[in-house]
Amino acid sequence: MTQLADTPTAPAPDAALPASPAAPDTESVAVDVEALGRQLLGRWAEARLHSRELVARPEFQRLPELGTDEHRERTLGQLRLLVENDSVHRAFPSELGGSDDHGGNIASFEELLLGDPSLQIKSGVQWGLFASAIMHLGTDDHHRRLLPAAMSLETPGVYAMTETGHGSDVSAVGTTATFDEAGDEWVIHTPFRAAWKDYLGNAALHGRAAVVFAQLITRGVNHGVHAFYVPLRDEAGAFLPGIGGEDDGLKGGLNGIDNGRLHFTNVRVPRTSLLNRYGDVDARGVYTSPIASPGRRFFTMLGTLVQGRVSLDGAAVLASKLALRIAIRYGTERRQFTADNDDEVVLLDYQRHQRRLLPRLATTYAMSFAHERFLEKFDAVFSGAADTDDDRQDLETLAAALKPLSTWAALDITQEAREACGGQGFLAENRLVQLRADLDVYATFEGDNTVLLQLVAKRLLTDYSRKFAKADAGALAAFVVEQVGEAAVNRTGLRRLAQSVVDFGSTARSVGYVRGSAAQRQLLTDRVETMIAELAAKLRAANRLPKSEAAALFNRHQNELIEAARAHAELLQWEAFTDALDDAPDAGTRQVLTWLRDLFGFTLIERNLAWYLIHGRLSGQRAQAITEYIDGRLLPRLRPHALALTEAFGLRDEHVRAVIATGVELERQEEARAYCAEQRASGLAPIDEKDLVAGQNARR
Amino acid sequence: MTQLADTPTAPAPDAALPASPAAPDTESVAVDVEALGRQLLGRWAEARLHSRELVARPEFQRLPELGTDEHRERTLGQLRLLVENDSVHRAFPSELGGSDDHGGNIASFEELLLGDPSLQIKSGVQWGLFASAIMHLGTDDHHRRLLPAAMSLETPGVYAMTETGHGSDVSAVGTTATFDEAGDEWVIHTPFRAAWKDYLGNAALHGRAAVVFAQLITRGVNHGVHAFYVPLRDEAGAFLPGIGGEDDGLKGGLNGIDNGRLHFTNVRVPRTSLLNRYGDVDARGVYTSPIASPGRRFFTMLGTLVQGRVSLDGAAVLASKLALRIAIRYGTERRQFTADNDDEVVLLDYQRHQRRLLPRLATTYAMSFAHERFLEKFDAVFSGAADTDDDRQDLETLAAALKPLSTWAALDITQEAREACGGQGFLAENRLVQLRADLDVYATFEGDNTVLLQLVAKRLLTDYSRKFAKADAGALAAFVVEQVGEAAVNRTGLRRLAQSVVDFGSTARSVGYVRGSAAQRQLLTDRVETMIAELAAKLRAANRLPKSEAAALFNRHQNELIEAARAHAELLQWEAFTDALDDAPDAGTRQVLTWLRDLFGFTLIERNLAWYLIHGRLSGQRAQAITEYIDGRLLPRLRPHALALTEAFGLRDEHVRAVIATGVELERQEEARAYCAEQRASGLAPIDEKDLVAGQNARR
Repeated sequence: MTQLADTPTAPAPDAALPASPAAPDTESVAVDVEALGRQLLGRWAEARLHSRELVARPEFQRLPELGTDEHRERTLGQLRLLVENDSVHRAFPSELGGSDDHGGNIASFEELLLGDPSLQIKSGVQWGLFASAIMHLGTDDHHRRLLPAAMSLETPGVYAMTETGHGSDVSAVGTTATFDEAGDEWVIHTPFRAAWKDYLGNAALHGRAAVVFAQLITRGVNHGVHAFYVPLRDEAGAFLPGIGGEDDGLKGGLNGIDNGRLHFTNVRVPRTSLLNRYGDVDARGVYTSPIASPGRRFFTMLGTLVQGRVSLDGAAVLASKLALRIAIRYGTERRQFTADNDDEVVLLDYQRHQRRLLPRLATTYAMSFAHERFLEKFDAVFSGAADTDDDRQDLETLAAALKPLSTWAALDITQEAREACGGQGFLAENRLVQLRADLDVYATFEGDNTVLLQLVAKRLLTDYSRKFAKADAGALAAFVVEQVGEAAVNRTGLRRLAQSVVDFGSTARSVGYVRGSAAQRQLLTDRVETMIAELAAKLRAANRLPKSEAAALFNRHQNELIEAARAHAELLQWEAFTDALDDAPDAGTRQVLTWLRDLFGFTLIERNLAWYLIHGRLSGQRAQAITEYIDGRLLPRLRPHALALTEAFGLRDEHVRAVIATGVELERQEEARAYCAEQRASGLAPIDEKDLVAGQNARR
Repeated sequence: MTQLADTPTAPAPDAALPASPAAPDTESVAVDVEALGRQLLGRWAEARLHSRELVARPEFQRLPELGTDEHRERTLGQLRLLVENDSVHRAFPSELGGSDDHGGNIASFEELLLGDPSLQIKSGVQWGLFASAIMHLGTDDHHRRLLPAAMSLETPGVYAMTETGHGSDVSAVGTTATFDEAGDEWVIHTPFRAAWKDYLGNAALHGRAAVVFAQLITRGVNHGVHAFYVPLRDEAGAFLPGIGGEDDGLKGGLNGIDNGRLHFTNVRVPRTSLLNRYGDVDARGVYTSPIASPGRRFFTMLGTLVQGRVSLDGAAVLASKLALRIAIRYGTERRQFTADNDDEVVLLDYQRHQRRLLPRLATTYAMSFAHERFLEKFDAVFSGAADTDDDRQDLETLAAALKPLSTWAALDITQEAREACGGQGFLAENRLVQLRADLDVYATFEGDNTVLLQLVAKRLLTDYSRKFAKADAGALAAFVVEQVGEAAVNRTGLRRLAQSVVDFGSTARSVGYVRGSAAQRQLLTDRVETMIAELAAKLRAANRLPKSEAAALFNRHQNELIEAARAHAELLQWEAFTDALDDAPDAGTRQVLTWLRDLFGFTLIERNLAWYLIHGRLSGQRAQAITEYIDGRLLPRLRPHALALTEAFGLRDEHVRAVIATGVELERQEEARAYCAEQRASGLAPIDEKDLVAGQNARR
C-alpha cells in the first residue's frame, strides 16, 4: 500500500511525488473569494447581478407554504414585476425596446431561479418561448401587431408545441392547420386525443394566446410543422369558441406554473396568423419557403428552442451552487457527536462526507465554466457574430451534450446535499427538497436527456464517418480533439503512457504521471475517441441493411452510444475547467482550483476505471492509485478551502434562505458547550455511571 | 467482438454458449403470475392482503391536492379507521388484545404505504414507536395504565428521542430527567436549544403524551438514557405547564404527519413515569438495573427501534414495486414516435429503456426476497423463538445492512421510473413524484444510511478480528460465507477461476464460466472477504494508537469501510434471491427468475468491475463479456416477461392509482391509428411535401 497521510487534514509532503512539480501546502495557499467570484460571474456579470438584486427582494421569492392556486398567482405577479423592473427585454431588438443582448438575457433569466424556479421557467415560457417564437418565426407585421403585448405581458402566452402523444418528436405532431382559401383562413384542428397539446405553461389558466405548432396543409399537401398565432381566451379568461383544455394539475415541482392541455376544434384564424418567416402561403394557398428542404426548414425553426436548453443548463449550475453552499456551510459547523467533550470534528472532516460533497463541488465548477462557454457560443450565433450553419449545428450539439449532464448533476447534487444535512435537509425551511423537486423535470423537458445524448452520439458518428469513410484508421487521432476544440493530444505519447505504467513500484510515482493536465486530457480524450471508433466499426453495417435491421443494430448499441456522448460531454466540461485555470486571479486561487480540477478529472477517470483497465490504458496499480490519490491527497487538500469555494458563488443570505446555513447551528453548539462548561465549573455536573463503575473497580 | 443477437428480442441460440447448460428460448417459457405473486407475498401473506384490502378503499388513500393541514387531519382520521378495522394490534400480547404476531404486524404496516406513506409512518409513530416503547421498556403497571389508550389512539403519542443537536447519536441526548426525592418525582428538563426534541411525528399537533428519552440522573449520578412517559397537552390541545414546542413545518414529503419540536422546562412527572424495565429508581433515589453494563443496557433499550428499520425496508421494497409497475406498464404501451406508420416499437423495446428499468426490477426482486428473510429473523427474535444476544446482534446488523440499500434503491428506482415516463412522470396524477418525495427521508431517519453501513462494517471487522487475531490468514476462507449463512465458497476454486480466464478466445465461452450461481457467489463473496481482510490489515495499527490517531486512521478508510458494508449487503440480497429460486412455482417461472437473478448478480459485478480487474479476479476480456452478456442476452430474454414480472406484485388498480398505468395510453394510440387509417382509406390524407419533392425529382 502507498505511503499516505496519517490524518485527513495533513497530507504527506509532496516530496513523495517526485515525478510532478511540488504543490504548495494546502494551508499556505488561499482562495481570493471575491476575485474568484468575479471570474465565476463571467462575461454577463452585470445582467446576473441585476437579477440577483431583484430576487434578493422578498416579493420575488417563493413562499414555501403557498398552495398551488396562490403560488400560480404569485408567480404571475412576479412576472409583472419583472416587466416593471425592465428585466426581460434584453434579447429583443433595440427598435422594439430591447437591447440585442442575447447572452445577457439568458444570464439574467437563469438567476431568477434563486427567487423561485417557477419564476425562472414561467418567464422562460413568456419571453423565451412565446414572445421569442413571434420574434424569430414571425415577420415585421407580427412584430408590430403581436410582440409588444407579448413583451409587456399584456398577453400572457402559451408555447403550444408538445402533444400528449409526442414528447420529443415534434415533427410528428398531430395538430393540423389546413388552409381554407374561401375564408382566407387557417383551420386549426386536433384530430384525436393523443394530439392534445400538453404540459404547456400558461395553458391551464393565464394564457390569452398561443403559438401553436401544427402540420401546415394547403392544396392537399402537408408542408410540415409550422407555428401559428392563436388567441385562446377572452378578457374574462373563458376559452374562445372551438378551444378547450384542462389543467395538468399538481406536479412534482414548479407548481407556480399553470401547466395544462389544449385542444382545437376547427378553430379559424386569419391567414396572417401563420408566423411566416420560414414558410408562407398566399391568398390562393400556394406555399413558398426560403428554405427548400422540408427537413432543414423544420430544424431551422426549432433552432429557437436552443435558448431554453442554454438557460436550463445555467439554472442547473446555479441550483447546484446553492445546494452545495447550504450543505457545505452546514457541514463545516455541524458536530455529529457529543457537545460536552473536546471533539472538534465537524461533518466535513469525515472522509465520507468529503467524498460526498467535494467531487460534486468540483463538478459544479466544471459545469459553471462549461456553461460560460456555451453561453458565449450561443451569444455569437444569436447576435450574428458567428452564425454559419456549422456554428448553429455546433451550438445544438453543445446544448444536447451539456444540458443532460448539468440537469442530472443538479438532481444528484441537491439530493446528496439534502441527505448530507440529515433530517434538517428534509425540512422545507432549509430549501433543498423544494429545489430538487422543482429541478426534477429539467431532466426531461426541453428535450429528454436520454434523447439529447443520442443526438450527440449521432453527431459524433457522423463527423467520424465523414472524416474516415475513406481515410485510414491512423487519421483518427485528431478527431475528438477537434470536437472539443482545445485539446492537443499526442496519441503516440498516450500509448507510451499506457504501456509504461506497469513498471513502477510506487503508487505515488504512478499517480505523478497521470495527474498533470496533459495526462488527464489524454485519458479522457482517448476514451471518447476510442468509444466512437469502436461504435463506428460496430455500426458500419447499418448503411447496407434494410431500415428496420439498421434500427435494430443501432438499438443493440444504444447504451454504448449514450455512454460515448456522456464521455464527450464530460470532456467538454473538463476542458472548460482547465482553460479557466489560466484566468484564475492569483497563484493561490489557481492552485486550489487546480486541485479541484484534478478532483474532477480523477473522479471521471475513477468512475470509468474498468474501461481504462480493459482497454489497457491504465495498469491495475495505477488505477488503484487514482482512488488513493483522491482520498489521501485531493480531499484533504481541498477540505480547508471548501467553504471559500462556495463563498465565491456570491450567494447572499437573501439568496440562500436556508435556516441551517445562517450560522444557527454554530450558535446552538456554542450555547450547549457553554452550558456544559459552566456545569463542570460549578461542580453541578452529575458523575457518569460508567466512570463511577470504573472508579469502583479501580478502588477494589 | 462477440457474436451476438441481431435484434434485441431474438437472442442468439444458446449453442453459442457451450460451457453452460442450454437455457430455453425466452418465448417458450412463461411466468405463472399468480403463483409467483403468492411467493412474493411470503409467509405473512394474510396480513399483507388484509392491509391491501383496506388501502384499496378511498378513505385510506392520499388525496394528492390536499394542503398540509387537511392532509394531517386526514391521516389522523385514517389511523382511527385502522383501529376500527382492528388492524394495528397484532404485535401486542394477547392479554392486551393483540395476537403476538410480530412478523405479521410489520408486514401489515408496510402495505399501508400503498394508501399513503404518511399513513404508514404515522401509524409507525403511534404503534411501532410510542405504544411499542411503553410495551417493551415499561412494566405491568405501565401496560395496565398507559397501553390501552396508546393502542386505541385515545392518546396519540410522540416518541421523543431525537434532538436537534443529536441525530444518530442517541446516547448523547441533552435532555435530563433528574430525580427529586422530596417530591418523589422526575424533573424533565431541556438545558439548551440543541437539546430540543426534533422531527417528532405527532409533536406539532396531535400528540397528547410522549415517551421522552433523557439522561437519568439520581443522587448525583447519570445512569444514561432512559425513557419517561410525559403528558404533553390538555384536552383542548394546549401544552401543559413547562412544555413548549414548535412545528417543523412543511417537509419534502410525508406532510400527512405533524412533525415538530418539543422542549421541557422543569416538567415534573411521578417517579412511576420512568419506563422501568431496564432500570429503576426507588423512593430514596437508588438506581437498580437488571443489566449491569450501562452500554449494554442502552443498546438493549434501543433494540426496540429495530422494528422501524424492518418496516422501512419493506416499505421501500413495496414503493419500488409500485414505481416499476407504473413505468413498465407505460413502457410496454407508449410509442415514442409517429402513430401513423407501422412502427411497433414501444419504449421498453429500446435497449436503453431496458437498461434503465430491468436491472432495477431485478434489484427489487432481490430486495423483496431479502426483506422476507429479514422479517423472518425479526419475528424469531421478537417472538422469542430465537432470541439470544447473538440473534439480536445479527438482527441489528441485518437491519443496518438492508435498510440503507433498499431505501436508497427506492429513491433511485422511483426517480428512474419517473424519468422513464417523461413529462407524464412529473404529474402528480401519475403518482411517482409524490412517492419519491415521501420516501426521501427514509434514507436518513431511523438511522442515517451512511451511519448504519458503518455499523455493519465495524461488525464485519470485529467478527474478522475475533476469528483471525491469532489465526493464520488461510483461515479467512469461510469467514464471509458464515456471515451470509448459505454460501459455499471454494476459495481454491475461485483462485483457479481467476487465473484461467485469460485463456479463452470466445467471449460467449468466457461468460459461460461466470454465469452460474456458484461463480457469481464466488465473485461476490470474494470481494467482501477481500475488502474486509484488506481493511483489517490497514486498520490493525488502530489498537496501538492513541484514541484521536486511531480515529484519524479509521477516517482515512471510512469510504472503503462503507463500500465493504455495501458489498456485504448486496451479497445478502443476492443470496436471498438465489435461495428463492428453489421455491419458484414451476420451471418456466424459475427460468425467468434465474435470468433476473443473473441480471442482478451481473449488474453488481459490472458496477464493481474495476475492483475485479485490479484484484485479478476477472480478465479484461471476461469483464467486457459481462456487459455484452447483459445487453445481448439477459435484457432481450427478460424483455418479454417484464410486464408479467410486475403483474406478480399483485397491485390492483386501486393500489396503483396512476393514470398512465390504466391502459389510457394504448387507447389514445389506437384512436390515433384508427384516425390515420381512415384518412388514408378515404383518400383525404394530405401528401407529404417530402414525398412530393421526391416525386417531382423522380419525374425530372
